[in-house]
Amino acid sequence: MAESESASLLKKSSGDIAYGTSASKLVSATASTFETVDWEFGAERDRLLREALQKSRQMRHRSRSKWRRILSDSLTAGEGWFVFLIVGFFTGLLAGMIQVSREWAFDLKFGYCSEGGFWNSRKECCRISKDEDSCWQWRTWSEFLMGLPGSGKRDRGYGLDYLLYMLWCTVLGTWSAWLVKTFAPFASGSGIPEIKTILGGFVMKGYLGGRVLLIKSVALVLSVASGLSVGLEAAYVHIACCVANVSSRYFSKYATSEVKKRELLSGAAAAGISVAFGAPVGGVLFSLEMLSSYFPPKTIWRSFYCAIVAAITLRGIDPLHSGKLVAFEITYHYAFGWFELPIFVMLGAIGGLLGTLLLKLMVRYAYLRQTTRIARHPLYEAAVVSFLSASATYLSTFLRMDTTDLLAALYSDCKYETNATLCVESDASNIIIFLLACALIKFILTIFGPNTIVPGGHMVPSMAVGACLGRVFGFCLSLVQERVGDVGFFAECAGHDPCITPGVYAIIGSAAMLSAVSRMTVSLVVIIFELTDGIDYIMPTTICILVAKWVSDAFGRDGIYDELIILHDYPYLNNKMEFVFNETAADVMKSRDLCVINATGNTYGSIANLLNTTEFSGYPIVKSMDSMQLIGYISRANLETVLNAKTPDMTDATQCFFTNDRPFPRNAPYLDFNPWLDQSPIQIVETTPLNRVIDAFRALRLRYVLVVRNGALVGITTKRDILRRIHTFRGTHKFASVNVKRS
Amino acid sequence: MAESESASLLKKSSGDIAYGTSASKLVSATASTFETVDWEFGAERDRLLREALQKSRQMRHRSRSKWRRILSDSLTAGEGWFVFLIVGFFTGLLAGMIQVSREWAFDLKFGYCSEGGFWNSRKECCRISKDEDSCWQWRTWSEFLMGLPGSGKRDRGYGLDYLLYMLWCTVLGTWSAWLVKTFAPFASGSGIPEIKTILGGFVMKGYLGGRVLLIKSVALVLSVASGLSVGLEAAYVHIACCVANVSSRYFSKYATSEVKKRELLSGAAAAGISVAFGAPVGGVLFSLEMLSSYFPPKTIWRSFYCAIVAAITLRGIDPLHSGKLVAFEITYHYAFGWFELPIFVMLGAIGGLLGTLLLKLMVRYAYLRQTTRIARHPLYEAAVVSFLSASATYLSTFLRMDTTDLLAALYSDCKYETNATLCVESDASNIIIFLLACALIKFILTIFGPNTIVPGGHMVPSMAVGACLGRVFGFCLSLVQERVGDVGFFAECAGHDPCITPGVYAIIGSAAMLSAVSRMTVSLVVIIFELTDGIDYIMPTTICILVAKWVSDAFGRDGIYDELIILHDYPYLNNKMEFVFNETAADVMKSRDLCVINATGNTYGSIANLLNTTEFSGYPIVKSMDSMQLIGYISRANLETVLNAKTPDMTDATQCFFTNDRPFPRNAPYLDFNPWLDQSPIQIVETTPLNRVIDAFRALRLRYVLVVRNGALVGITTKRDILRRIHTFRGTHKFASVNVKRS
Repeated sequence: MAESESASLLKKSSGDIAYGTSASKLVSATASTFETVDWEFGAERDRLLREALQKSRQMRHRSRSKWRRILSDSLTAGEGWFVFLIVGFFTGLLAGMIQVSREWAFDLKFGYCSEGGFWNSRKECCRISKDEDSCWQWRTWSEFLMGLPGSGKRDRGYGLDYLLYMLWCTVLGTWSAWLVKTFAPFASGSGIPEIKTILGGFVMKGYLGGRVLLIKSVALVLSVASGLSVGLEAAYVHIACCVANVSSRYFSKYATSEVKKRELLSGAAAAGISVAFGAPVGGVLFSLEMLSSYFPPKTIWRSFYCAIVAAITLRGIDPLHSGKLVAFEITYHYAFGWFELPIFVMLGAIGGLLGTLLLKLMVRYAYLRQTTRIARHPLYEAAVVSFLSASATYLSTFLRMDTTDLLAALYSDCKYETNATLCVESDASNIIIFLLACALIKFILTIFGPNTIVPGGHMVPSMAVGACLGRVFGFCLSLVQERVGDVGFFAECAGHDPCITPGVYAIIGSAAMLSAVSRMTVSLVVIIFELTDGIDYIMPTTICILVAKWVSDAFGRDGIYDELIILHDYPYLNNKMEFVFNETAADVMKSRDLCVINATGNTYGSIANLLNTTEFSGYPIVKSMDSMQLIGYISRANLETVLNAKTPDMTDATQCFFTNDRPFPRNAPYLDFNPWLDQSPIQIVETTPLNRVIDAFRALRLRYVLVVRNGALVGITTKRDILRRIHTFRGTHKFASVNVKRS
Repeated sequence: MAESESASLLKKSSGDIAYGTSASKLVSATASTFETVDWEFGAERDRLLREALQKSRQMRHRSRSKWRRILSDSLTAGEGWFVFLIVGFFTGLLAGMIQVSREWAFDLKFGYCSEGGFWNSRKECCRISKDEDSCWQWRTWSEFLMGLPGSGKRDRGYGLDYLLYMLWCTVLGTWSAWLVKTFAPFASGSGIPEIKTILGGFVMKGYLGGRVLLIKSVALVLSVASGLSVGLEAAYVHIACCVANVSSRYFSKYATSEVKKRELLSGAAAAGISVAFGAPVGGVLFSLEMLSSYFPPKTIWRSFYCAIVAAITLRGIDPLHSGKLVAFEITYHYAFGWFELPIFVMLGAIGGLLGTLLLKLMVRYAYLRQTTRIARHPLYEAAVVSFLSASATYLSTFLRMDTTDLLAALYSDCKYETNATLCVESDASNIIIFLLACALIKFILTIFGPNTIVPGGHMVPSMAVGACLGRVFGFCLSLVQERVGDVGFFAECAGHDPCITPGVYAIIGSAAMLSAVSRMTVSLVVIIFELTDGIDYIMPTTICILVAKWVSDAFGRDGIYDELIILHDYPYLNNKMEFVFNETAADVMKSRDLCVINATGNTYGSIANLLNTTEFSGYPIVKSMDSMQLIGYISRANLETVLNAKTPDMTDATQCFFTNDRPFPRNAPYLDFNPWLDQSPIQIVETTPLNRVIDAFRALRLRYVLVVRNGALVGITTKRDILRRIHTFRGTHKFASVNVKRS
């Protein structure tokens, strides 16, 4: 089983990049080949390839108009900066469009704009009459059905509206799931585990294609509008990466090099988080900390540039009509007291515990649905989950809100904000019970929401849970302080009014929760820093995330993305893990049934037969089967390229050569594989400790190494072999339960 | 010449770490060995070593008191976090102490505090009488000499004060240089190029020792107080790294592992920048972007934690008595107009050009002083430069200020700040001329100041030059706008008063200048972001730095740190560089006079003789000289360790064994080198393209690779060989002039 699994994976990862249309056959074939080789070492070939491409473009230019030539030449010059600009711009543009559509689709559940165009959201529609309550332009569905004019009251026909709301939610959620299932299954979920894998050096054909981009954008609007407990934010990363991949097709430097493309993807991911949270620096750090295995300093700067461009574009669109990039940006300032530090620590610990619980439950449900029939009926699942979400959330105005608006309400300050529902102290016990109920309902919904097939992540939903809890904490503390006065523990409060801001606890609680679920650290601190526009919060946030991460790490070091990578069995070599293996390369290598090509004596027929009967993505070339002396390595795709170049005068008996010494007259037809050979594949001796091998796989982002003994090939070790060994290790040592479930 | 240079370097880098006192001889010997091997691959051995150390510590524990055992055990548990805490805390503490002493020493040039203790700075001294002008407690030196009481007037005896000022400056500057020259030559300069090299995998014995820490701290205070155009800020990085290195001696995990120690150093560097600019996130990004070749995600978080701890500690000390961490933090907010963008671009271009000029002049002078006799008389140099600085700067209150205070003045806002000397519009032409003169004088002084032997960097001085220019820009623009009114180009100004804030231009100008000199990018944006406490400035700063970097990159891609690394010939493999070599590993390897050890037939005498007659840091072991079949690699230090373990019954003829097959009776005395062998050194085939080899050196941070042909050793390639090849490439292709100067 092990062998076949490895072979199928190798096959899966071979020759599969979506390509631009104009690239010549040769270029597309070689490029798709090189990526199946490890990508650090593909850089060498990319350079040569680029030269060839440039030459071929110059040829084509002669037949083009002068104007196009000048444009093309100037594009090549600043190509790198230009493509990052394009990606940033379109990411910002798309994010703005998604925001606007989402708002409209979200409000459509309640009613429509009867005056000024049905395409307006409630907020837009009500802009004319400043007072929200007397917004007669907005007509609820019950009013529409009963033939009444718009009244501005939201809950006139409560029962009917409830029913219609549930119907709308279910329809929107199911529609979103249907779109994904029918047109682009890759559009489901947040996409972050997959992008992490892709950035780690794997290729998923079509995962970042135009179709996914389109479907994900539309379905994301629907899924978020449906009131499912999913967030837009993480999905922006996938959308931005799709933009980057599609854009890269038009720029030869990026189209032909998988390494360069990954630099662009890192930048796009930064842009995605930048528009999601209005945090360009946070985006870069997210890309760096959570996603990328390969991040040269040059890319940091370009990513930042890309993220800034995206943020500026979104600011230009101003989808929220408030000058803010995200609804839950806050502007009030706050100086914490030292006496609050133990509370922050406690909040961090509780957030860490609950976050870990949420994470474990999410993962457990994910395994459950994969192993039961739920996964086979994703539309029913989406329908049921959105129906249940709708039933649970309609009961409260706060839960009915979009999650980002809920966060904004929870983050708000009692002193300056008008929205004071959460601040009335006479109503204290009700508020506390309400917030706890909110937290519980959101918690439960977040276990299921992001696990359905619809697009969307868990970031903002889990932040909302934490924010509810944090707000309860802060609210209780402020009540106690009011009761007790500025003495003892609260002595520092003297002269500060209000002394305790519940909104700050909400911010910190949400950071703790998100940190425990995703294991984000610095990037999260910086995102909060940028969201709150000030360094006042940096210390509380850091302390809280520190504690939350310590607590959650006690239950396992993997965040949701790593867990999903394990669940889906993606070939990702986690570089956070430290293993102590006592084995050597010889213990994990594949030596039995090692499929090698003898350098001499091959014919067209024998090579074609080899390709048909085996499934490996590449073959070592040896001098002779006896000596097993290694000459090089050739990938399956390269073999196919040469075989396809067969001319009519060749037969099955046409000789094939892998070395340069061809002892025959030059006029006989022959196939020359020599230029397609990797003549210096990475070799290790069989006594190399496994830990070193893993380090080399990580550092050089290898796909395989050849194992030699005294210069003779004795085996091959693929990334897959390494991953399998690590999984076994985890299974027997720490993650026994997970492993049992997965086998 | 090439061979001997390589050999001397190899020798230089062998066996030289400053060690803690308690480590056993075995541990210290092996650890110092492992670091001369490449450090990524040292990780494997570190793990084994750690186990051994733990065991030996358990042994020692038995003889210790229970209390010490408990303490030690709990320390081991959270050792990592604790040591980062320690480093952060002491960095903050030292920074605070340096700030306070510097202020006192700086004011000492003008006079002393006659009431309340001479150890008070002028500001402290004058605190009693709120008004600075009537601060009679402060007595100038001329008043002291003439027997007059303190008057609070600064310039009473102008001529005498001028003379005394020049005297003080020269004394302080020369004293600082004398301290450095006599006690710790490593304390000179900013230390950033060296730390970059150390983090890249090189070891400089004593560079981060306690003596350097002490001398650098004291001499830094003196050099900054002397009015030399040097900044504290970059030197904090070196000081923090010394703290980290000294602290690491008390923690076995860090004392025994060079890899772990480098993680700690990365964190310390972040803490250094954090206290220098009050920018913890900026510090982490600086460490990541400018310094570290190895930065696992775990280290990012710990570095951030370290930086935060340092910032909190410094805030607790509050050396400026203003709640600010640095003098030039600003608090006003500002919304830029779109019409200002072209101005920012222009400012970026000019800053980039001037920064490049400054960089080139600094580097040229650095070469000049190395090749002439200036470098041999650093005390005279320091005396002359500080004398000339003093003469030039006394003429203006602004130049006489500390550079950080100058920056604060230039960054200040005309509307809110009291210091309005730079804002009076009736005096416009004088202000412009004055600012330009300031910029020119600072520019010239900054060429020489950081090149002297005294500690201190070029960061804040070059920022000051840029700030002067930026302020001129902003000031002129605001004058034009006042004259023209809110029409045309300035239409956006309508309703904004003041529309143009010269302080903002000063900030942006300084960012452009610093970016051109050091080639910082994201880290600089974030530092400015944290200095200005708001995202208002993020877009102007980004645009300006973008342009400045583009402009300066046109004149060469190396910043001051890279240039100094080249100047000092440190073995640092710049990973920003992209080369296209057409050679293979065979072309750069050392094959002639290859010094190998035959696995059999060695005696104590022969090995000792080998060590005495050659200077290599390690030796490949081959099965036989005929087959050259590789068995392993042993470092010089490991050979020495085994030789030193010689027992009295051994003679020069005692046999040495490198393999496990020992065909003789076990009771004869023999030396067993087998456990000390690296049995799987990195091997490459000789046809490997050089580009790949360089990639491998970078990614795995190798020190050497063995080159094989058909399993037989044919050569060895060291980092030095690679560096020499790169230098040649640069010399012949781009940097011909530099190369000529250096040869």
